[in-house]
Amino acid sequence: MTKPMQVVGIGNALVDVIAEADDAFLDRMNVERGIMQLIDTDRAVELYAAMGPGREVSGGSAANTIAGLAALGARTAYVGKVKDDQLGAIFAHDLRAQGAGYATPPTPKAHAAETGRCLVLVSPDGERSMNTYLGVSEFLGPDDIDESQMARAEWIFLEGYRFDGPDSHAAFAKAIKACKAAGGKVAITLSDPFCVERHRDAFLAMIRADVDLLMANEHELKSLYLTDDLEAAIGRARAEVPVTACTVGARGAHLIAGATRAHAPAVAAQVVDATGAGDLFGAGLLWGVVTGRDWTDCLRMGNVAAAEVIGHLGARPEADLAALFAEAGLG
Amino acid sequence: MTKPMQVVGIGNALVDVIAEADDAFLDRMNVERGIMQLIDTDRAVELYAAMGPGREVSGGSAANTIAGLAALGARTAYVGKVKDDQLGAIFAHDLRAQGAGYATPPTPKAHAAETGRCLVLVSPDGERSMNTYLGVSEFLGPDDIDESQMARAEWIFLEGYRFDGPDSHAAFAKAIKACKAAGGKVAITLSDPFCVERHRDAFLAMIRADVDLLMANEHELKSLYLTDDLEAAIGRARAEVPVTACTVGARGAHLIAGATRAHAPAVAAQVVDATGAGDLFGAGLLWGVVTGRDWTDCLRMGNVAAAEVIGHLGARPEADLAALFAEAGLG
Repeated sequence: MTKPMQVVGIGNALVDVIAEADDAFLDRMNVERGIMQLIDTDRAVELYAAMGPGREVSGGSAANTIAGLAALGARTAYVGKVKDDQLGAIFAHDLRAQGAGYATPPTPKAHAAETGRCLVLVSPDGERSMNTYLGVSEFLGPDDIDESQMARAEWIFLEGYRFDGPDSHAAFAKAIKACKAAGGKVAITLSDPFCVERHRDAFLAMIRADVDLLMANEHELKSLYLTDDLEAAIGRARAEVPVTACTVGARGAHLIAGATRAHAPAVAAQVVDATGAGDLFGAGLLWGVVTGRDWTDCLRMGNVAAAEVIGHLGARPEADLAALFAEAGLG
Repeated sequence: MTKPMQVVGIGNALVDVIAEADDAFLDRMNVERGIMQLIDTDRAVELYAAMGPGREVSGGSAANTIAGLAALGARTAYVGKVKDDQLGAIFAHDLRAQGAGYATPPTPKAHAAETGRCLVLVSPDGERSMNTYLGVSEFLGPDDIDESQMARAEWIFLEGYRFDGPDSHAAFAKAIKACKAAGGKVAITLSDPFCVERHRDAFLAMIRADVDLLMANEHELKSLYLTDDLEAAIGRARAEVPVTACTVGARGAHLIAGATRAHAPAVAAQVVDATGAGDLFGAGLLWGVVTGRDWTDCLRMGNVAAAEVIGHLGARPEADLAALFAEAGLG
């Protein structure tokens, strides 16, 4: 299936504001460690005023995946909403400069909300606690979906976080319909265990009806199927989805496709900032999929890409991923 | 001389947009390697569109010095103009979060220009080529100078780059007068050899009349005195300024104060991004000065702080400078 686009991603268009923070600060500011919390404008102002000097790097989960795919040379594009403001211009520039298409029109200056951002607090051990002010990214709706773009894609890749926006369910439905009608496939990432908690029924309905590739980490997959038993969750996914990829932290990643099961160990890395590990795992995995690699190679590519991104601050790749693949014997 | 403020810096308030770029790109885009070029809006748009994905870190030469001093625990503040926009908010946050005072009111949203930024292109060898769109930072004038703040400062620290703004000469004069009238002292950095070339007479007039501490690198000092002979330039500075600190790259730094002369070797560092080396040298040196260290220790502190900042992308310190001083026997 060769189409003009290999992967089109849809998600929350965010700029990350990254600062270091110790446990005392996280406790004092009531920040939950290791997960993504949605915050409103007042909380964003309060938290930003209290946190240390930051650095800004374009982020957004699916956008990070698409940036990784673009860095690998994939024909790829992204759909997500920014505003016509400075952070929106930065977000758009960084995706396009990486080689990804990005044509979602920015929300006009008159809109009350701004481009969304994620205040990422990185602990001394590299754990990241994300505090997301969605801004205009929340308002992604069906009008932002270009059906012809979806029809041109081998895969569309949907970010679970976007289930937090009511209009985005309709946007996803429109994208899925256009993609599938043209013979394309649908991948989704569950994004976050608490996001799964908030939208379990919607996730399950979509997964059962339309998803060809489900990506999750173990916590998300267990949350989806309301079980503490990872193998039970994998069994449920196996029955409902053609392919499930499930990362299990330092134990690597599993892939389940009907009767086939693959595993690849994690790639050793000094964790500087865990932000983007799942996103870049997705980039590596999807690159394997669209270039026709076997499942084990797909997982290994995911693990190599994830290891690169956790070795530095920020969730976009900095090293040459293709060179890292070649070094790992995946060239 | 104990005053409420140890150092108040005045300069161009900029956010750095940092991207990697190879020589072929610099050639194709007519970027001069290793220096600072002023660019207009059209050129900023053209260069930004062509350059790779960036990361944004607050910058501005004197602001970097003040951030370094604040990180060391100095009583310090900064004067420089941003706009009431997102990059301006980032700049203000990062200085205040570091512990520096910053009270210059932002230029209102209605102003045509935006917060200034510097497109920093980092070569594989760590050399940085800076392309500065001054934006509203250019309009720093006498009205932005609070004479009572200058009177409360043991030192004011003037950024040579600001000589590029006509109103800023008057701002500097107002600041110097208020500072000196209250018994304070004046430090200046020459910033860049081409900036010296543009404003040699103004630099010399100020240096002869008012400067107590002159900071420069060897290229800037030779440009100031129109000579290729560093020792000749040092001799001229010795006759005109109470104290001159001159960095000489990998050969370290010299300090000349009348009949006294000190030298400290450079601190070995893996150069990732040379941006901010001179700014953080200034922070270490001034920290030594305001804490009463001898000249050799002042130079060594400057060299340790410079080595920290060139070891990572961005011109603001990331490691604990006080801990690095202690490790170097400067605790």
